[in-house]
Amino acid sequence: MRNSYGLRIAEGVRDLAPEDLCYLEQKESCVLKLFEAWSYRKVLTTGLEYGDCVEPEMRRKGDLYKFFDREGQVLALRPEFTTPIARLVSTRLRHEELPLRLCYSGDVYRSGSQRYREFRQSGVELIGSGADMADAEVIALAIEMMRGLGLRDFKVSLGHVGVFSNLADELGLDGKLRTDLEDVLARKDIVMMNRLLEEAPLDGDNLCQMKRLVDLLRLLPSLTGGEEVLDRLRDFEDFDSVRRAVDSLRNIYGFLRDFGVRQHVAIDLGILREFAYYSGTIFEGYVPEVGFPVLEGGRYDWLYSNFGLDTQATGFAFNLEALLAMRDPVAARGGAKKGETGADVLVYGSIPDKVIRRCQELRREGKKVEMALGSLSKEEACCQAEARGILRVEPVDR
Amino acid sequence: MRNSYGLRIAEGVRDLAPEDLCYLEQKESCVLKLFEAWSYRKVLTTGLEYGDCVEPEMRRKGDLYKFFDREGQVLALRPEFTTPIARLVSTRLRHEELPLRLCYSGDVYRSGSQRYREFRQSGVELIGSGADMADAEVIALAIEMMRGLGLRDFKVSLGHVGVFSNLADELGLDGKLRTDLEDVLARKDIVMMNRLLEEAPLDGDNLCQMKRLVDLLRLLPSLTGGEEVLDRLRDFEDFDSVRRAVDSLRNIYGFLRDFGVRQHVAIDLGILREFAYYSGTIFEGYVPEVGFPVLEGGRYDWLYSNFGLDTQATGFAFNLEALLAMRDPVAARGGAKKGETGADVLVYGSIPDKVIRRCQELRREGKKVEMALGSLSKEEACCQAEARGILRVEPVDR
Repeated sequence: MRNSYGLRIAEGVRDLAPEDLCYLEQKESCVLKLFEAWSYRKVLTTGLEYGDCVEPEMRRKGDLYKFFDREGQVLALRPEFTTPIARLVSTRLRHEELPLRLCYSGDVYRSGSQRYREFRQSGVELIGSGADMADAEVIALAIEMMRGLGLRDFKVSLGHVGVFSNLADELGLDGKLRTDLEDVLARKDIVMMNRLLEEAPLDGDNLCQMKRLVDLLRLLPSLTGGEEVLDRLRDFEDFDSVRRAVDSLRNIYGFLRDFGVRQHVAIDLGILREFAYYSGTIFEGYVPEVGFPVLEGGRYDWLYSNFGLDTQATGFAFNLEALLAMRDPVAARGGAKKGETGADVLVYGSIPDKVIRRCQELRREGKKVEMALGSLSKEEACCQAEARGILRVEPVDR
Repeated sequence: MRNSYGLRIAEGVRDLAPEDLCYLEQKESCVLKLFEAWSYRKVLTTGLEYGDCVEPEMRRKGDLYKFFDREGQVLALRPEFTTPIARLVSTRLRHEELPLRLCYSGDVYRSGSQRYREFRQSGVELIGSGADMADAEVIALAIEMMRGLGLRDFKVSLGHVGVFSNLADELGLDGKLRTDLEDVLARKDIVMMNRLLEEAPLDGDNLCQMKRLVDLLRLLPSLTGGEEVLDRLRDFEDFDSVRRAVDSLRNIYGFLRDFGVRQHVAIDLGILREFAYYSGTIFEGYVPEVGFPVLEGGRYDWLYSNFGLDTQATGFAFNLEALLAMRDPVAARGGAKKGETGADVLVYGSIPDKVIRRCQELRREGKKVEMALGSLSKEEACCQAEARGILRVEPVDR
């Protein structure tokens, strides 16, 4: 007999029973079909990466499930797909024509999460283009995907990591102060941001410029809304990084109108991402039912160079697993949906070769057929069929 | 820049590039459709089990990828699905009507293997029946699956673990001697088997019976062929375990004729399985192209009781990954198959909103459409399309 751990499922991971899995895979198939229509080709990277591959850009290193392999190297479970795909593209797919459009859908593992240590993530990577149109394409695709999934009232926030990170560079911010500022910026905690900036050991040759930078940093959390938000940055466009970010966002915002998806998008210069590889446009998507972004994406222009390939890339990841939690609770109860995963007909009888032959006939006709094992009475057969949600029962002996 | 491990894939695991993944998923989908037609419902267990769940029945404990979780418990990557599904059925699915037919397809991890430390396994579990017909059903399904996959010349060996294990029990064999005997029996190394049995410290109250048991053990490796093999065991049918095994195999062999699959099956009483949970009928399938069994299955009647559920079960697992190695080498080279995963048409032009609109139209028509990023000349567009295997190029400006 197993001990108590042997009977249990580990913390934060999940099994998918037939009705849950069927639901998740229907959604997944709908997402992948759309990716394919936009000419993204599906790849699957290994579930087991060297820690040296996936760890460098993780802000929360503790999130990795790590262990040693037989050769003494650190292995880690795949925490996401963007970095592994960069490894794949820069090695085995190195000679593919760029731009390269790839997509994926698979389970990822993060030990630090309370709720989702294991979850299904679906996403795309557009590799080999620095064009604003590339960002617009992946954002438009993400929005079409959420529409296709029947999500209502979802919102996509569009920001640019370059504004904060370049400003932080110019201010000479690093270490804990920089992380703390990222944190309060992400939470839009303006009181705390002011306190951090007041206590910050800021200096520089040009104190006047420095004061303007601090003003801009203070402005960021409030820069949310439509295109008019970008106008409020006009005073700061003598900073190269700000002007470039504003130009990009303006272009992308325009393209999103052409794609017919702009009504879902709000500019928000306060957002930041958990993976450190983002370098430009970033975006995240929210649905009212879930308290964290179900969609995360953006541009990562130096990730590939870390793998020895001088190219730019953009993409997104969608938390498909969150759809399970958002399901209509009545439908989710399972019983009612059994018909979807169960058989069409239960065949029973006392002469095995006749029962077998009838099952084969019905399967050839495209039916899902359950064959009764052993001789059942009519009552037993009907009772089994009912318990399984099988609508048709067929005796075959006579 | 990543260090050398950061750029590499770990030992024995694999990435699946678009053409490989497309091939594997086509085969997987064909297998799962068949399972569904036989009324098996798909489940997915977590990738991360407690070691206490999956380790007890593994003969080669070293095969597990194991590590500690945050709570200090040993976690292991899923090495197979049968034991995790027993955990799932005996807990969350405990109240489902039996017999319960479940299937799965997913990646499993075994650190001890040289070639396949990560591979896709597809299989079924028929839970809640001890009937010979249940074994016959899963064997027939396995054979229909291999036929459906277009495999030629495959062979399924049918044995019974009860003959060896009950004999070994009666002989009082355990520890290293038992393992060694299993090993030589599996390899049909009769010379070594004779040596082991001669050196074995056999004793017992009835030396005459003991001698007969040794004779039977010596006979096992040669018991391969059709139904006539079972006749050669007639002399030993006063041993309960032998008689029961022979009766079962005879029944199952008969049912397999009714299923129309017997031509693929040979009885072989020398086969054994790597997981210790098998307790009755066992079988394995071979294809000429691969040097190990691609199919493994059998009956495990006490596995569920280890999880506190008093029921019997039978099933099989198929190594879907092996199909990749068996692919026609010309087709596998990739270039020629690109059309299958790539787009139908490349749309280009210099006015973004027109290009976008045309792409949307074509996608609504069901086409896979790649949108050129930036302004391409006709030559550039044709060149990109050719490199990707896209047959149609469409300009939209004029």
